[in-house]
Amino acid sequence: MVGAGQPGGKPHPRRAGGSLSLNDIVVALSGGIGGAKLALGLSNALPAEELLLVANTGDDFEHLGLHVSPDIDTLTYSLAGLDNQELGWGRRDESWAFMEALGALGGATWFRLGDRDLATHVERTRRLRAGDSLSAITADFARRLGVGPRILPMSDDPVRTRVLTVQGWVDFQDWFVGQQARPAVRAVQFRGAAEARPQPELLATLASGRVRAVVICPSNPLISVEPILAVPGVRDAIAGCGAPVVAVSPIIAGQAVKGPTATMLRDLGTEPSAAAVAQRYGALLQGYVMEPDDDASGIAARVFRAPTLMRGLPDKIALAQVVLNAADRLRA
Amino acid sequence: MVGAGQPGGKPHPRRAGGSLSLNDIVVALSGGIGGAKLALGLSNALPAEELLLVANTGDDFEHLGLHVSPDIDTLTYSLAGLDNQELGWGRRDESWAFMEALGALGGATWFRLGDRDLATHVERTRRLRAGDSLSAITADFARRLGVGPRILPMSDDPVRTRVLTVQGWVDFQDWFVGQQARPAVRAVQFRGAAEARPQPELLATLASGRVRAVVICPSNPLISVEPILAVPGVRDAIAGCGAPVVAVSPIIAGQAVKGPTATMLRDLGTEPSAAAVAQRYGALLQGYVMEPDDDASGIAARVFRAPTLMRGLPDKIALAQVVLNAADRLRA
Repeated sequence: MVGAGQPGGKPHPRRAGGSLSLNDIVVALSGGIGGAKLALGLSNALPAEELLLVANTGDDFEHLGLHVSPDIDTLTYSLAGLDNQELGWGRRDESWAFMEALGALGGATWFRLGDRDLATHVERTRRLRAGDSLSAITADFARRLGVGPRILPMSDDPVRTRVLTVQGWVDFQDWFVGQQARPAVRAVQFRGAAEARPQPELLATLASGRVRAVVICPSNPLISVEPILAVPGVRDAIAGCGAPVVAVSPIIAGQAVKGPTATMLRDLGTEPSAAAVAQRYGALLQGYVMEPDDDASGIAARVFRAPTLMRGLPDKIALAQVVLNAADRLRA
Repeated sequence: MVGAGQPGGKPHPRRAGGSLSLNDIVVALSGGIGGAKLALGLSNALPAEELLLVANTGDDFEHLGLHVSPDIDTLTYSLAGLDNQELGWGRRDESWAFMEALGALGGATWFRLGDRDLATHVERTRRLRAGDSLSAITADFARRLGVGPRILPMSDDPVRTRVLTVQGWVDFQDWFVGQQARPAVRAVQFRGAAEARPQPELLATLASGRVRAVVICPSNPLISVEPILAVPGVRDAIAGCGAPVVAVSPIIAGQAVKGPTATMLRDLGTEPSAAAVAQRYGALLQGYVMEPDDDASGIAARVFRAPTLMRGLPDKIALAQVVLNAADRLRA
């Protein structure tokens, strides 16, 4: 058990100890808002070139003829300081003139796209149709918005998360936003995952022998992290990268900080708990960061206790430090 | 020669005389802003069911992956009272958050799309891809925005105006907006026109024997009206519809009220004048409405003198009345 790590707030602190080379890389898997919070902490705790963020694209979908990549955008906007913290999605200082006009024309308004956010989807869609890869577009947008660390989609091929409810299989966003995540989920599938090729730069990094840690951010395991692990080769590449794999629990006292993680786990037959999430990751995990008061029974990985609720930037940096320290201790 | 017609401003005045049936229809061909002004006048001078507006689609283009139909939108926004009178295009009370964000992502900003206007292009593009016709989409948008008269694209098939300049053939919008209409035009072509099918409702109306008048609005003949006439069958259907064809000069004292009409005529070897425009329409025209002081030499059609500059709505309605009276006199 470790404490809350180094005092937060210092940008790019250098690690103590001499066992790591300058360019060792932290690979972090992230879904939506919870993952992006820790990603922001990591980006403040590490030099940009030492952090590689892997975004879930299972939530991606076509809407209004536009390619929307919610988790890539959440990561990009968060790291650029452009995220809308009130809504938990989209851009800050957003306006909604497009949406209002669209409604007046009879267009679909159930998935809300702000005027500024829309530029991301329109330009990404245009470039995808012109033949650019999702990776290249993501990298270019991040660079233009001033994001330092690399953000990679898990794959440039389409993977689409679908959920089985009493109404049959529906696309993730239809359930999550359209039905406000209300119908109970009986199963989850990642359509296209079996044929998807992992993002090459991700595989190359994992195979480089230069990985310091693989961090599984506190995202929903079912719909944010497992789609990444479902891309053929990714799980094995992580397991074989030679670095410790450390996850952060997205569950505190049986509840998700935000989103449907706890409800989904329960609907799928698992009592939601920090331990239940660790068990889903199984042997992939060497370290697990969880709340001091939560039950660690049945967790095979080494447990690191720390506050995991991230309110402001200091919390995010502190938790990032906990995770990095845990990985370095596992490695030592 | 007639005066300025009935006093303007009265909505839907009934025509005097008993020679016309209740449902006789005025078909008006329109391009951009000048045409839309007279179209608005006609829409105030006629019951909605007695007016059929035919929009040029030669200006249409794909931009940012979206199908933009500038002349349809100018007509629709004008008749809905949503037009941006300061800019002369787009919607009133417009905001530009999308454009600003697009620029920050490296997207193309040379053709400006406002946040509200963008809804039109996104939803139209989505519906076109879903298989709806441009006609059906145009009719639905007009209905939803409260436009009474029918607005028809000249064709549901793509026709693309291109201009030859010293740099070779370029798409119309690249020249008109991208190059601010600066390079001299040596030729104009309507790509796709020869294969385009005229909008069926337009042909049916022209063949119905119920047409009161065909009005050629004061639009640029070269790039607004002639694309409509270039769709196979349209010119013959107009000539054979049994109603007088009356055009309004877009040229006053050798100048266009707005836009490149005068410069284009000159670049193509014709001194810009009201008469030169009438001569381009040739035998199609029975009536021509032009300024009292302009030279009518060489105009084969019957000339009707009236003020043609439309500032406010009363001017538009007054000019509409002049045109209707001219047509009815030619018919009598």
